[in-house]
Amino acid sequence: MTRPQSVKIREVGPRDGFQNEPETISTDDKVRLIDSLGKTGLGRIEVASFVRPDVIPQLADGVEVLERIDVPDHVKLMVLVPNSRGLDNALKIKERFHEVTIFVSASETHNFKNVNRTVDQTMADNDGMAGRIVDAGLKCAAVIATSFGCPYEGHVELDRVLDLAQRFAEAGATEIGFGDTTGMCNPAYSAKFFAAAIERLPDVEITAHFHNTRGQGLANAYAALEAGCASFESSFGELGGCPVPAGSTGNIASEDLISMFHEMDIDTGVDLGKLIESARDAQDVLGRKLTSHSIVAGPITWNTLAANA
Amino acid sequence: MTRPQSVKIREVGPRDGFQNEPETISTDDKVRLIDSLGKTGLGRIEVASFVRPDVIPQLADGVEVLERIDVPDHVKLMVLVPNSRGLDNALKIKERFHEVTIFVSASETHNFKNVNRTVDQTMADNDGMAGRIVDAGLKCAAVIATSFGCPYEGHVELDRVLDLAQRFAEAGATEIGFGDTTGMCNPAYSAKFFAAAIERLPDVEITAHFHNTRGQGLANAYAALEAGCASFESSFGELGGCPVPAGSTGNIASEDLISMFHEMDIDTGVDLGKLIESARDAQDVLGRKLTSHSIVAGPITWNTLAANA
Repeated sequence: MTRPQSVKIREVGPRDGFQNEPETISTDDKVRLIDSLGKTGLGRIEVASFVRPDVIPQLADGVEVLERIDVPDHVKLMVLVPNSRGLDNALKIKERFHEVTIFVSASETHNFKNVNRTVDQTMADNDGMAGRIVDAGLKCAAVIATSFGCPYEGHVELDRVLDLAQRFAEAGATEIGFGDTTGMCNPAYSAKFFAAAIERLPDVEITAHFHNTRGQGLANAYAALEAGCASFESSFGELGGCPVPAGSTGNIASEDLISMFHEMDIDTGVDLGKLIESARDAQDVLGRKLTSHSIVAGPITWNTLAANA
Repeated sequence: MTRPQSVKIREVGPRDGFQNEPETISTDDKVRLIDSLGKTGLGRIEVASFVRPDVIPQLADGVEVLERIDVPDHVKLMVLVPNSRGLDNALKIKERFHEVTIFVSASETHNFKNVNRTVDQTMADNDGMAGRIVDAGLKCAAVIATSFGCPYEGHVELDRVLDLAQRFAEAGATEIGFGDTTGMCNPAYSAKFFAAAIERLPDVEITAHFHNTRGQGLANAYAALEAGCASFESSFGELGGCPVPAGSTGNIASEDLISMFHEMDIDTGVDLGKLIESARDAQDVLGRKLTSHSIVAGPITWNTLAANA
């Protein structure tokens, strides 16, 4: 496999990151941070989730956020919906975004703890939602959580994950994201997994979503890249995690991931300096030191072309 | 290249890590921490540096540390010497350790700022030191700093680095460590570099030393592993850095590196739980939160064999 020369980045911080913050972030701050992310060159930003506000109060202002943000035309906005009722609400303002993400956990136990339904029940709902999203003229993206392991069940069979991906694709999803929800992937398995996924689903956009629980997030991303994966989800400031189990730690930092790609002379379209500024603004808003490395180190200042020539 | 099934770990925290700490660590604490590292299964630990005490006061108690520590027979103890005078002092108690590390920076500017001599001057001294170390019945290991780039000069030519390695080997060094002193390596370059180094120096043990400045440390280690590198330096608790330039951030954490290897079913000989306990003890001694991920996440609790089968 030849290493991709350019990659796509899905920024999920304003949804996946913010939803894990214990202190309420004001709508003003959310709008300003998303608007600043929109000016970095990022092509896709997940900005809201149509979940019940009593379950995730942090995202209760999603409609207001969608109405107030102002990003350049090239930026595709994504929203997450957990079920048909969430989709009903999302489609009421469908002119405000471009893509809808639906999801399931590959592990039965994690799925039930996360959304209180079995995998079969979730997928039956997802089948119908995918059709409605496509019929509404929107892109349908699907995410499969615990793709690389489940904190409750351990290993999750690769074929089980790819069967779910196939079903999503048949229902209308044109992109499948594979989530390492609690940081259980290792680079050897990432290499094996993404080679298999790309072979099984040649017509689907394959996206990798890693967590940095034990520091392997970028190693997993590099292994996926070498297997041919050219789309990645990440979160500015290394924000985010997963509601279950409690204490699950952050996504990989968008600025660290993008720095790695740029140092390898792989194009992302992102202005790394501007992205680091956005992450530092988020750090100020949250009032605690974030774990992103590039926030501290700053953007690279040397020319990597000579090394990689 | 087939991925190595087992790797060696050189633990450099008690030297490289401690020397960067601004507050004095008591000799009692150093001895206790080294003794606890000795019980983890680590095969090699760098425990002292024979530098001038006015330059690095933190390591002024090196002789006392060497005299008081008590580690199992299988643990090889390493000391660092910067010049012939340091070697004179080290050889006075040569029965207390097994290996001596000598070093140079591949970059002229970094070498001068670090040891106040040119690369040629340093290498002339190193040639003589290597012979004396071998004659004393000790293993001579050499480290080449700024192997992957210099913060002052930018890219450092690969051939220049390997020429220095060849000269070390001809002088008697049986191991060469390549140091990413200020975190400038990326995984694509790591893969290219270690493939070239192993081809050029087939009879020398090649060791990789990465920093986690922008979060790529483990990605670089994985890329080196895939190129055939089977020896790594790291620092418990992600301690360490480099005296110049100021603010250079930490080594990769031994516990994160070893967790990655174990998750890939690569043998290190180390009891990860015990190593994390040592790193947490260091965290208590230093009185600040260390950046190692495994200190927070704890050892892996799932069986990775099924995923990697």
